[in-house]
Amino acid sequence: MPQAVEQNVSTLTILGVGLIGGSIGLAAKQRGLARRVLGVGRQQRSLDEALAVGAIDEAHLDAATAVRDADLVVFCTPVDRIAEQVVALADSYRPGAVLTDAGSTKAAIVHGIDGKLPTTVAFVGSHPLAGSEKKGARFAEARLFEGRVTVLTPTARTDPATVERVSAFWQALGSRVKVMTPEAHDRALALTSHLPHLLASALAGLLPAELRELTATGFRDTTRVAGGDPALWTAIFAQNRAAVGEALSQLQDRLQKFRDALHDGDWSLIDELLAQAKRNRDALGT
Amino acid sequence: MPQAVEQNVSTLTILGVGLIGGSIGLAAKQRGLARRVLGVGRQQRSLDEALAVGAIDEAHLDAATAVRDADLVVFCTPVDRIAEQVVALADSYRPGAVLTDAGSTKAAIVHGIDGKLPTTVAFVGSHPLAGSEKKGARFAEARLFEGRVTVLTPTARTDPATVERVSAFWQALGSRVKVMTPEAHDRALALTSHLPHLLASALAGLLPAELRELTATGFRDTTRVAGGDPALWTAIFAQNRAAVGEALSQLQDRLQKFRDALHDGDWSLIDELLAQAKRNRDALGT
Repeated sequence: MPQAVEQNVSTLTILGVGLIGGSIGLAAKQRGLARRVLGVGRQQRSLDEALAVGAIDEAHLDAATAVRDADLVVFCTPVDRIAEQVVALADSYRPGAVLTDAGSTKAAIVHGIDGKLPTTVAFVGSHPLAGSEKKGARFAEARLFEGRVTVLTPTARTDPATVERVSAFWQALGSRVKVMTPEAHDRALALTSHLPHLLASALAGLLPAELRELTATGFRDTTRVAGGDPALWTAIFAQNRAAVGEALSQLQDRLQKFRDALHDGDWSLIDELLAQAKRNRDALGT
Repeated sequence: MPQAVEQNVSTLTILGVGLIGGSIGLAAKQRGLARRVLGVGRQQRSLDEALAVGAIDEAHLDAATAVRDADLVVFCTPVDRIAEQVVALADSYRPGAVLTDAGSTKAAIVHGIDGKLPTTVAFVGSHPLAGSEKKGARFAEARLFEGRVTVLTPTARTDPATVERVSAFWQALGSRVKVMTPEAHDRALALTSHLPHLLASALAGLLPAELRELTATGFRDTTRVAGGDPALWTAIFAQNRAAVGEALSQLQDRLQKFRDALHDGDWSLIDELLAQAKRNRDALGT
């Protein structure tokens, strides 16, 4: 599989060279998966950073020029811009080009693109479950995708060959691939990623400055993701509004159960809730 | 300060030789703060583990024997047993002995002891803000308290000399000491420690087995503390019930604000809530 990709990708173009885009470029270059890696950004500063860490070979401010020769184009821009950008460049892709993205939401993106591209190019949505609260190509890591899951979200219109091609690319970066519908992805990630962010932010938001010195690893771990970029996350919540709302509602019910048990002094229920949580958490490993 | 302690502690007795008690023993021995370190446990297995890692010099199943010669006794047992144990050993301490604990709650413990000890011994409550979700002396670390805050909670009856003595001990272990009332401690820790545990547990408890593979660092960080011991945490919630209830109520209000904003599509409010959380989190460092 990796070999097939290695032979095929002559030019890889990455739109958005932050932590994820930069890591894709770095990994692709280090693994010899593309002859040339082109990076596109809106700010010269981000492009310079990506060039400096060796994540891209060429920097472009103009996306149309940068995608012209690309066999594979990966959109790593904020989730609320991806669909629009993919479609806006419709006339610029070379025939046979394969497009994908790395957005944390899928339904809005995938349905915003489905049926709107020339038949000569193919798109399938991707979401590599990797990243951190850090921002910028200077935090890029060639091994970011190793051992991580990347979800691919084809629709009824997606050619299976496109799914295979994009799967092979993520696998070549070290990732395991899982195929789901965009809707199933969004429901799952609402619980496993978007809700944790919301919770961490709600908790961090409550901390008065005078209690900072009384936080230890528990508070710090639990709120770590709240250090993420607010604009990126607002866009994620906006795109996955319904599923996040539903996951939040489940969590609110669970918290109310804790609250009632505290109020009633029902310590065996508290113990049971904590024990169930521990079993779930222990099953995840570190 | 450290020197004063070094000269004074001939025998240090630690009741409960788990992660915290074991780390105290290890740190005290490595720093030469006590001539002898005695460990007390209910199970020979825990004592053997503490002996094996070098956290204690002698293992005892009988607390009364082990405290008889101690200049300093530190109770590292579960929060719901500390007050009872401290008081039950009243006739066993040597005159001049200083007692403290390492419990995560303070008011119930401190008031359960205050005025119930012979005038020849002195107690002041302590809470070192260090630890992890791991259990047992095999995870003990001599550097666990370095750079961490330890809260001391004297009452109106506490002799200032006792506070100084116990402060010097924690400082000699590398900790910074902060003095608060037991009640102020419990209100603060409800927000900075007990609520994060409750939240992490509520979130971990919601995860169905089939979504485990779709968790990444965000979910794992946010729920890490949920791996802690359920019985220990149930006791903490029981002892700090009112303050935890109040902190939880604040958090529920904040979550409802997020929920309403999601429902209303008020993205600027979401962005503002996330930005405030990020400022608070960034102020904590890693």
